[in-house]
Amino acid sequence: MTEVRVAILGASGYTGAELVRMLARHPNFRMTALTGDRKAGQPLASVFPHLSMLKLPDLVAIGDVDFGKIDAVFCCLPHGTTQDVIAGLPPHVRTVDLSADFRLTDLDAYNTWYGHPHKAPELQAEAVYGLTELKRAAIKDARLVANPGCYPTSVQLPLVPLLHAGLILADDIIIDAKSGTSGAGRSAKEANLYCEVTEGIHAYGIASHRHAPEIEQELSAVAGKPMIVAFTPHLMPMSRGMLSTIYVKLAKGAKAADLRAELSKRYDAEPFVQVLPEGAVPATRHVRGSNFCFMNVFDDRVPGRAIITSVIDNLIKGASGQALQNMNLMFGLPETTGLDQQPLFP
Amino acid sequence: MTEVRVAILGASGYTGAELVRMLARHPNFRMTALTGDRKAGQPLASVFPHLSMLKLPDLVAIGDVDFGKIDAVFCCLPHGTTQDVIAGLPPHVRTVDLSADFRLTDLDAYNTWYGHPHKAPELQAEAVYGLTELKRAAIKDARLVANPGCYPTSVQLPLVPLLHAGLILADDIIIDAKSGTSGAGRSAKEANLYCEVTEGIHAYGIASHRHAPEIEQELSAVAGKPMIVAFTPHLMPMSRGMLSTIYVKLAKGAKAADLRAELSKRYDAEPFVQVLPEGAVPATRHVRGSNFCFMNVFDDRVPGRAIITSVIDNLIKGASGQALQNMNLMFGLPETTGLDQQPLFP
Amino acid sequence: MTEVRVAILGASGYTGAELVRMLARHPNFRMTALTGDRKAGQPLASVFPHLSMLKLPDLVAIGDVDFGKIDAVFCCLPHGTTQDVIAGLPPHVRTVDLSADFRLTDLDAYNTWYGHPHKAPELQAEAVYGLTELKRAAIKDARLVANPGCYPTSVQLPLVPLLHAGLILADDIIIDAKSGTSGAGRSAKEANLYCEVTEGIHAYGIASHRHAPEIEQELSAVAGKPMIVAFTPHLMPMSRGMLSTIYVKLAKGAKAADLRAELSKRYDAEPFVQVLPEGAVPATRHVRGSNFCFMNVFDDRVPGRAIITSVIDNLIKGASGQALQNMNLMFGLPETTGLDQQPLFP
Amino acid sequence: MTEVRVAILGASGYTGAELVRMLARHPNFRMTALTGDRKAGQPLASVFPHLSMLKLPDLVAIGDVDFGKIDAVFCCLPHGTTQDVIAGLPPHVRTVDLSADFRLTDLDAYNTWYGHPHKAPELQAEAVYGLTELKRAAIKDARLVANPGCYPTSVQLPLVPLLHAGLILADDIIIDAKSGTSGAGRSAKEANLYCEVTEGIHAYGIASHRHAPEIEQELSAVAGKPMIVAFTPHLMPMSRGMLSTIYVKLAKGAKAADLRAELSKRYDAEPFVQVLPEGAVPATRHVRGSNFCFMNVFDDRVPGRAIITSVIDNLIKGASGQALQNMNLMFGLPETTGLDQQPLFP
Repeated sequence: MTEVRVAILGASGYTGAELVRMLARHPNFRMTALTGDRKAGQPLASVFPHLSMLKLPDLVAIGDVDFGKIDAVFCCLPHGTTQDVIAGLPPHVRTVDLSADFRLTDLDAYNTWYGHPHKAPELQAEAVYGLTELKRAAIKDARLVANPGCYPTSVQLPLVPLLHAGLILADDIIIDAKSGTSGAGRSAKEANLYCEVTEGIHAYGIASHRHAPEIEQELSAVAGKPMIVAFTPHLMPMSRGMLSTIYVKLAKGAKAADLRAELSKRYDAEPFVQVLPEGAVPATRHVRGSNFCFMNVFDDRVPGRAIITSVIDNLIKGASGQALQNMNLMFGLPETTGLDQQPLFP
Repeated sequence: MTEVRVAILGASGYTGAELVRMLARHPNFRMTALTGDRKAGQPLASVFPHLSMLKLPDLVAIGDVDFGKIDAVFCCLPHGTTQDVIAGLPPHVRTVDLSADFRLTDLDAYNTWYGHPHKAPELQAEAVYGLTELKRAAIKDARLVANPGCYPTSVQLPLVPLLHAGLILADDIIIDAKSGTSGAGRSAKEANLYCEVTEGIHAYGIASHRHAPEIEQELSAVAGKPMIVAFTPHLMPMSRGMLSTIYVKLAKGAKAADLRAELSKRYDAEPFVQVLPEGAVPATRHVRGSNFCFMNVFDDRVPGRAIITSVIDNLIKGASGQALQNMNLMFGLPETTGLDQQPLFP
Repeated sequence: MTEVRVAILGASGYTGAELVRMLARHPNFRMTALTGDRKAGQPLASVFPHLSMLKLPDLVAIGDVDFGKIDAVFCCLPHGTTQDVIAGLPPHVRTVDLSADFRLTDLDAYNTWYGHPHKAPELQAEAVYGLTELKRAAIKDARLVANPGCYPTSVQLPLVPLLHAGLILADDIIIDAKSGTSGAGRSAKEANLYCEVTEGIHAYGIASHRHAPEIEQELSAVAGKPMIVAFTPHLMPMSRGMLSTIYVKLAKGAKAADLRAELSKRYDAEPFVQVLPEGAVPATRHVRGSNFCFMNVFDDRVPGRAIITSVIDNLIKGASGQALQNMNLMFGLPETTGLDQQPLFP
Repeated sequence: MTEVRVAILGASGYTGAELVRMLARHPNFRMTALTGDRKAGQPLASVFPHLSMLKLPDLVAIGDVDFGKIDAVFCCLPHGTTQDVIAGLPPHVRTVDLSADFRLTDLDAYNTWYGHPHKAPELQAEAVYGLTELKRAAIKDARLVANPGCYPTSVQLPLVPLLHAGLILADDIIIDAKSGTSGAGRSAKEANLYCEVTEGIHAYGIASHRHAPEIEQELSAVAGKPMIVAFTPHLMPMSRGMLSTIYVKLAKGAKAADLRAELSKRYDAEPFVQVLPEGAVPATRHVRGSNFCFMNVFDDRVPGRAIITSVIDNLIKGASGQALQNMNLMFGLPETTGLDQQPLFP
């Protein structure tokens, strides 16, 4: 049986912990190194007591990892610092990067949205955008996969096939998205305190969220022309979960039923994507703790319009789960390996 | 000092309890009768222990109220049963109805959306739609006020002045709204159990929610032509609060700043409506427990579009608070009487 | 490989759904029949959309199950109705009953606490109390296992070894327990609505909860004399999780460290029970979604007293997980089969 | 009408904001200065947008307040820094201090629990412990009131009268308390992030919480002998609210009903304290947003024992509300002034 020696860089954050949780049951991937620069020397159990039943290597500094003995790297480091680290990895290592550093292919766009020139442009050129269901062929052979953002995952899964099939227009797409608070990470900020988040909702990053250019890049490629979308994320009192409510204009003559049929056909054989039956409403609680994306399409009362809703667990299909799905693919394993956990409800 | 004898019909639901809470500190309105047919004979404290410090009349059946001794009625009964009850009130009684029974002026529309012919069409003709800030003159002299729905309140407060000023187009208005669970009332349904609601979100009533025709009726009147809007409500894990995120097309040459300026001018003197400073994001937690509506306007990245967000407490400005504001107006009292409570945060 | 044909009676409740979730990944247990009398004929996915990715038999009425083709039954039916159903099963079927029907060995106590004479006293005599870590030998060969209550599980795991070792006194044990709302089941009751539960806490069943006699029965057996404990459960705004804070008197000369040492020794080899390091505080979020019990012991400032806290997921170790652990044991499988899922945090 | 010029020191924290909210409707107290050293120069609305409808002075540094023009100070500063500040106030100013700095009368105990010698021992000697219902006479004339901790308030209100009446024993009192997260303040700490707190519970400060000596000091004074109590606080997913479940031994012959009768008699005329009817369970949601304390007493099944539960809003009766109640008393105003708001439920 294949054994792959895995390092998780940045194992002391939420996405790192999710990878540990899933890899604990993975038959092929062996967690060989876990890094956490500020917590180096500590057992992971002291950072994440919920993982204390696992036998794991202690946290180390990245500089102390012997990458000669590592086959695969999950990189869960903050945006901006990641590109340097990955540029320094030996060439035999295959990497899935959960940060945003390699998602934008246009270096000017990167500069504009992230405020500094990209530090590893040649790596950027090599990186493959890892929305698994849509990019399988390229991911399989990639050395570096840029794991998609959570919002872009929930949006592209329904929109890409519909744009491709010409069933919706590229204009006037409006995405109203709602995310769980874990998307903000584990760093201590007033805005993410329990008392500030519970029992409330507000929009944030209106017309300025960095996932907008990522969504537009991928949709534009399918549409064959530059697209601009309206994208408004909202912060919600839930730890995990993401819902995108998407308002689209139908191509002439198309109906919601046609869209649903197209998506059903497209995802029929996919183990993680489900198009719900007519009228059934996707709910985040039905995918919580799983790598699933549930979606559906509804006729709008406004003539010529449809409403699409799509739900994922932002930490799994929106981050660590999709990263593992990609790594499985890169190492020739069934994509579902280590990802067969059903949603946790209630 | 004016003393008004008040009856609350349906005091055993959430909106009834909110009225009791606010009226407890009202200097002019004296709670003379509280009804609750299934709980008749019980003290309200046994239904709502949080109100047990108040001296209140016990719950009675509606049939046992002597309306000869009542000046004003808040009607918090379920949709459909309300019209009969109000039709039976003596003519001297002035009523604010919190149900949907008298909101739609078109009897055919009522029939279509509520599934039966209206039983009190002549009363319907007399009823005044009670969005206080927009209908003050008519409310003042009304005998029957149809208190607006929560969603329509949060939507019309920003949209009506903008449509009126010609700053936004009447086409392609998209309303993505998020509501607290108290909007579903206190009746025991599986869908509203704690375990089903907490830590999740989903849309409901997509393209079929009864507040859509109410919104369209009022906006159409301002636009001077029939309008259809996209309206998608979502159920959220919060007891109270409502956020409407509204996507609009700008009139030629208009900018978000123009919209904000118009709204600021319109609501400058209003005690309950606030247009936030540029860039400040309305959050439901900042109006919780108050009669306030906070709103703001943002430029979209999509050329020619803007994004408006508006927040209220669905039980107060979206229901009982606005009802009290209307009744104050009807009895010549300052609108803020009994409504000066600041938001409860955290 | 062993294949065991399994029926879940009452699969449309929360504990039934948890069993389905866990059995979906179990290599030996095949779900052959799922019952839900009121939902007979429906796919489980219509009752629990989060399980809709699984291939499962449709729900049927209990009367329509061919128990000749069933080897093992998980019985998730309501208290009181269970004893009749189990009494009617053919003798080859091995059953784990998640209800309270077979937990009390004293038929008079059953009558007192449940309000009617037991209908299957001979089965009661045969039933084995299934707290796995404490009753392994008997469970292995049992035909009928009475799966413990959630509170009793969280309480006995720490107390039984300490009483057995004589490190704590049998008098004056005070148990203050906090439970997630899923313990109340999925039936629609006003008290369990989101708005009634969120952001609050209250005690319930003070001095009258049916888990008290169950706890006392098992502790008394260890102590060798009748015991009465103070037991106060509380309802909390969390879907799953249970914390018992237990106040005990130390045997002469004993310290908290002695209790921790005894428990550590007792549970050292157990895959699901962990005694935390000195000073580490068990938190329900660290066992959520797992079959784990975490516990610890603390010196009280009151001389001669110690404080024990113990956490479980009430739906897993407190119900369906322990049931599966027991069934594994009954069929000679490793206890951890199908139960290797790590906690889901955040 | 009396006008009192008030300063709130530390208005940028949760207890400061609560005072602002309540004082906004107070007819006699005029907010003249609000301090927030790190936010000096900002309007309070930028720190607390929920208060943005109020006309308030901007935040200033403490050093910039002209205390010659201040009559009354609410001090909401952190423990430890407070004593210096209060020592520097001119003698005409009357102060209610919400910190713990002046609660412990024994300077050695202060040193032990707070880790440094008290810096203003002469002020400590002058300070009056401000549990209003129990210390009215002394508070009335005090220049400096040490406002009680939240836990001690919820505990003393039931226990002091019962100890005084000799109805419960001073030994073996066990207090299991549950608090909302606002008690931890607004500073950004990982432990208080939404994702760390929601849907879970854990004990903290076991046998080492600083409210234990405060409780013991006050109970000992009533009992006439040194007392040690078991006290275990728990952190819960609610913004505000506090429940103390208290396990007591009854004096010979006493029953729960006797305790309830004593408490009812003691608090009959109190506007903020309510002893519930037999069997009614206090719930935090029923006092949320109010200055109320609800309590009740239950017979335990353990002979000779009773269980008391008591609920408050930790930010109001447990902090800012009681502070205002005290200040009203100090200035000869009705205690309820500005505190007549009913609980906010749901």
